[in-house]
Amino acid sequence: MGELPTTCVIGAGISGLTAGKNLGDYGVPYECFESSDRIGGNWAFKNPNGRSSAYASLHIDTSKDLLSFKDFPMPESYPDFPHHSEIKSYLELYADAFALKERIHFENGVEHARRLPGGGWEVDTQDGETRRFDALVVANGHHWDARLPDFPGTFTGETIHSHHYISPTDPLDLRDKRVLVVGIGNSAADIVSELSQKAWGNRVTISTRSGAWIIPKYVFGRPVDKVVSTTPWLPLALQRRAARILPRLISGHPTDFGLPQPNHHFLEAHPTASSELLLRLGSGDACAKPNVERLDGRTVHFVDGTSGEFDAIVYATGYNISFPFFDEDLISAPGNRIDLYKRMLHPDHDDVVFVGFAQAVPTLFPFVECQSRLAARYLAGTYRPPAPEEMRRVIAADDARNTGHFKDSPRHTQQMDYHVYEYEMRKKELPAGRERAQRLGPVPLAGRAGEPVGV
Amino acid sequence: MGELPTTCVIGAGISGLTAGKNLGDYGVPYECFESSDRIGGNWAFKNPNGRSSAYASLHIDTSKDLLSFKDFPMPESYPDFPHHSEIKSYLELYADAFALKERIHFENGVEHARRLPGGGWEVDTQDGETRRFDALVVANGHHWDARLPDFPGTFTGETIHSHHYISPTDPLDLRDKRVLVVGIGNSAADIVSELSQKAWGNRVTISTRSGAWIIPKYVFGRPVDKVVSTTPWLPLALQRRAARILPRLISGHPTDFGLPQPNHHFLEAHPTASSELLLRLGSGDACAKPNVERLDGRTVHFVDGTSGEFDAIVYATGYNISFPFFDEDLISAPGNRIDLYKRMLHPDHDDVVFVGFAQAVPTLFPFVECQSRLAARYLAGTYRPPAPEEMRRVIAADDARNTGHFKDSPRHTQQMDYHVYEYEMRKKELPAGRERAQRLGPVPLAGRAGEPVGV
Repeated sequence: MGELPTTCVIGAGISGLTAGKNLGDYGVPYECFESSDRIGGNWAFKNPNGRSSAYASLHIDTSKDLLSFKDFPMPESYPDFPHHSEIKSYLELYADAFALKERIHFENGVEHARRLPGGGWEVDTQDGETRRFDALVVANGHHWDARLPDFPGTFTGETIHSHHYISPTDPLDLRDKRVLVVGIGNSAADIVSELSQKAWGNRVTISTRSGAWIIPKYVFGRPVDKVVSTTPWLPLALQRRAARILPRLISGHPTDFGLPQPNHHFLEAHPTASSELLLRLGSGDACAKPNVERLDGRTVHFVDGTSGEFDAIVYATGYNISFPFFDEDLISAPGNRIDLYKRMLHPDHDDVVFVGFAQAVPTLFPFVECQSRLAARYLAGTYRPPAPEEMRRVIAADDARNTGHFKDSPRHTQQMDYHVYEYEMRKKELPAGRERAQRLGPVPLAGRAGEPVGV
Repeated sequence: MGELPTTCVIGAGISGLTAGKNLGDYGVPYECFESSDRIGGNWAFKNPNGRSSAYASLHIDTSKDLLSFKDFPMPESYPDFPHHSEIKSYLELYADAFALKERIHFENGVEHARRLPGGGWEVDTQDGETRRFDALVVANGHHWDARLPDFPGTFTGETIHSHHYISPTDPLDLRDKRVLVVGIGNSAADIVSELSQKAWGNRVTISTRSGAWIIPKYVFGRPVDKVVSTTPWLPLALQRRAARILPRLISGHPTDFGLPQPNHHFLEAHPTASSELLLRLGSGDACAKPNVERLDGRTVHFVDGTSGEFDAIVYATGYNISFPFFDEDLISAPGNRIDLYKRMLHPDHDDVVFVGFAQAVPTLFPFVECQSRLAARYLAGTYRPPAPEEMRRVIAADDARNTGHFKDSPRHTQQMDYHVYEYEMRKKELPAGRERAQRLGPVPLAGRAGEPVGV
């Protein structure tokens, strides 16, 4: 153990938990720091650390078989699309099965991480302590720092970001209201579907700039991700081209329901999984508008020249990637962009590994597990990435393939096909990295950690 | 006009309205009697006469193009699946366009109709008057007399029939409750979908005896009834056989969601149109049980040997065909069976016509319009049915085709494929009836009505 770098894992959500499990498997000595009193991060509903974006009605959009970590299947009794409370229970079972909580410092999040000259990190935690580590695993998630659009003008009604939305009556009383939901991701679709239930008495409008392909959770009676999936050994561009017909077959065209033409083809971005949104639109319970042009009191003007009066706006407009513990000039993600090799390794800093910073299609769960395996092998010295220059070349090439079809949009900087990623990791990157490690030796991380630096 | 039989139309719902419109077209002198202060019957939400089964969230399960009366399309602005309030507005437009309200006696329903010796009818109405008519059109609907199952034992929680269900808080407070919904028709599916929304905090179970094929409202992004439909000039049995593959393709098999195997094949009975029920079951928000075996306090025992505790039962168990204005030994529908030629003409009574007494797949609207055309031609004398013996033979043959595949069940006695019915009416029955009328003369209905018989 002494030969391996002491490691600080930041966060005990799905990324931190899988990282911890895999670091443990490889004997990497680590400690995990979590600001909350519980594990689960985003999946800990009403997480006291404020980092959960879960709402009462939230069900995962991915079926349980695909969602399960490969080494820990979900309970047989679970439904196809588990509720957030079941996901949380599953994570508890996972943490217990691998004794992960013993290594977690609860209510003791990382407040500042300073890179030391010559490598290694000095880490300040909530308890006022400062500790030294050879390496960091950044697993603080990217679904908690609410991103708000910058519309001209001022809206004088109530506003809320979907991050804070719990239910139609919590925290805002959204009953008998004229509600505008901005965005068309899963949260927007779920919130529109919920608020437009007749019993709440609302008049609900959805406004979207970029549009999205809407697919139901079930197709042909099977979870959609069991029916529609990429095949990782076929060229992705070809598959995306072939798949363009699918949403029309499955759900019809968004424009048939008043939604704008998506600014991308199917499978080029995370589709919105909703069995209800198109039904609500097609039943007149909700109506669709294009992007907001400007706000003026209770009036919202849309880019098509129409306008409407609203009592409340729900901004389901996504999240920023934030690293509040890094000095901004050291590591940050302006415009939600951060260039990482395989979305994990920083070409300038060899002693920090990122886990979970992607919008993986169809889901983040096995993706973070896959990344955690690489993180563990990297820190254990059995995987070595290429030289920084080659890393930068590959980052640019991967970027062009994954997100090159988008105009600059913070929503899509992290787009990623899990099946392709996992296949390439398993078949190419891990073997190549093992060969490099054997040939060149592991990346020489900074000296072993000393005793905690007293404050 | 004097040559045509004076006619009493009972009810001003969709059947009475289309009957009135068509009788007017053919110059049949008629008066319509309606117990409520408004038209619309079932579609008049919270109808003061208690005859509406509409709940707040009710949307029609048929797309507007198919739903529209052939001579009066729905407004372009309507959504694909209009809300009950829009259906009501449409019926208002229809009534205004054809000046139907002038002929309706509001708040003056028929209380008793006596057949006179030698034919003709004496009709007592709410206002205490008695009137004589040559003929009756029975259009009082069959979605208002709640049918309750006869389970052994007693349930001590709250119970309600779906007829009275308005919303999760009206008239019962169904929040944070353990709710059992019995039935699997459209009402059951809608109520389960609504009550199992997480925001209500309920634990919802659906129990069904017969099972049903569940199809979403949209298939391939188009209203399902535009995609899946019978072709009337092909043998129905053959089509039903070919169609058996469809629900599996579209929605999967009900047993995959915990529901029982339907007791019939697809298209042999009205499928349940719901985009949400299977999602709720597959997400664990609701769970499915087979039929109830017996009730015991708050405990409900199911036929599979399982049991559960419940706070409330919603019986979405359908309706009885009731004619409260007829003496039971004259005309009644025991076990929901009444043998009518083309579901309209009584072999024993030539001066009464029934409109709307079928479970037409996919919908009742154009079906009642089709029946109303025949009613008008019959009363106008341009259509003549065959002799009573032949009528009875055809009734038995039609019955065998339409519902012969069912065991005796009051739910399915009225099963009917609209497309087949309309085609056969237009291509065969109306021409044959015209030929009979020309050859034999119209059916000699009872003498002209005299003055009202004073009370």
